Amino acid sequence: MNKPLILITNDDSISAPGIRFLINVMRSIGEVVIVAPEGAQSAKSHSITITNPLRYNIIEESTDYKEYSLNGTPVDCVKFALHKLLDRKPDIIVSGINHGSNASINIIYSGTMAAATEGAMGGIPSIGFSILDYSFDANFNYAKKYIIKIVNKVLAEGLPSKTALNVNFPMANGKEYNGIKVCRQADGYWRENFEERLDPRDGKPYYWLKGDFLLNDKAEDTDEFALSNYYVSLVPVKFDFTDYSNIKELKSFE
Amino acid sequence: MNKPLILITNDDSISAPGIRFLINVMRSIGEVVIVAPEGAQSAKSHSITITNPLRYNIIEESTDYKEYSLNGTPVDCVKFALHKLLDRKPDIIVSGINHGSNASINIIYSGTMAAATEGAMGGIPSIGFSILDYSFDANFNYAKKYIIKIVNKVLAEGLPSKTALNVNFPMANGKEYNGIKVCRQADGYWRENFEERLDPRDGKPYYWLKGDFLLNDKAEDTDEFALSNYYVSLVPVKFDFTDYSNIKELKSFE
Repeated sequence: MNKPLILITNDDSISAPGIRFLINVMRSIGEVVIVAPEGAQSAKSHSITITNPLRYNIIEESTDYKEYSLNGTPVDCVKFALHKLLDRKPDIIVSGINHGSNASINIIYSGTMAAATEGAMGGIPSIGFSILDYSFDANFNYAKKYIIKIVNKVLAEGLPSKTALNVNFPMANGKEYNGIKVCRQADGYWRENFEERLDPRDGKPYYWLKGDFLLNDKAEDTDEFALSNYYVSLVPVKFDFTDYSNIKELKSFE
Repeated sequence: MNKPLILITNDDSISAPGIRFLINVMRSIGEVVIVAPEGAQSAKSHSITITNPLRYNIIEESTDYKEYSLNGTPVDCVKFALHKLLDRKPDIIVSGINHGSNASINIIYSGTMAAATEGAMGGIPSIGFSILDYSFDANFNYAKKYIIKIVNKVLAEGLPSKTALNVNFPMANGKEYNGIKVCRQADGYWRENFEERLDPRDGKPYYWLKGDFLLNDKAEDTDEFALSNYYVSLVPVKFDFTDYSNIKELKSFE
């Protein structure tokens, strides 16, 4: 039997510890192709590169392991892999492990999850992994057995058509996680404050985006609740933005 | 009575004909503040600028009209307007008129619609307008009365909490549009092909993203169907990515 073909990407760049950890874990499961951004692409959401050309570098090309970097976004990486580099459809796409949370509303800004969503849009079972730890030295060890379990289950059973998984791990506290909770995205909001500084060249102000996350949602079926109780959160994600619940009400616009 | 405060942005840049047209229409309705990207930001989706500082330029500041450009994405523009430039919450956010379709799956790549979604996330009734015409000389004249009708209705009645509107206009064919259809997002997919060229400097290849849109969805309740029948499409949009229909099925991951 052929080994499954696993496409790996992320948004923190091909050299980030999160993707290097994920690559090592995936090599124990199948044939691995990495197409990941050459530089950091955090908070790039579902953006694609249309006004600049794309260039890729071959880092390694062996029989069951191939690694490429691309001067684009995470979604560019998925498109470039599927429609240019690969000669067959991958069995699964895994994205991450992202350094930082993609729970709650963070998913909308996330390049890591956009890559997974793009994969699902192309009909490929896709999973984004993230950990609630921005540190370069984030401890991924407790995540390992969950990643293997989830990936193997998806390879064996597939996922509902065009659904991706958004999996977040709590910051490791020295103990095994309490398990997995399947949940919904919590309702939250970033209240931004822009930190002003003065440019030494001309004395004019410039601003850094710097916000506070507000969790409006205290329900117990959310990803935020699971994570705060040291569970791994798993949210099924789809990319239909239609607000079906309000179509009828808005018929008055016709 | 105070005039309503209208925040305007887009993704084609502050000098694009689509936003200039929208500004003129909005000045007949209320007090206008424009915060729009200084350069083209198409296909930037919900990306935000976190690794570079933001700078803005004052273009005009009078009593009931203010215009600013920002070196950021459409979502940056909304955040910077709401959390930095404005001293009160706008009554409505309008984004566009985008040169090009944001129907079907195009919404996920769109900076224009991301700005509207960001507005709705902040609790402000928000609308994205787009026309199925990429041309600089796109004819917006038939759109005008619909824009006025929709904006006035939203100002009078509001929108469901955190729901934005995705409004697309067919390319003008010399006749009035047939009316508005409230619809759902059609199911579609971009099959990409990357056009290869050789760099004159070093002979190495580079690639342009160049895809074909595949409409899988022939149903009559979609935005694509409405637009192909010369109706204005109006899709209520929300930013909860949870695939509620599959939460129960995926409980087996726990």
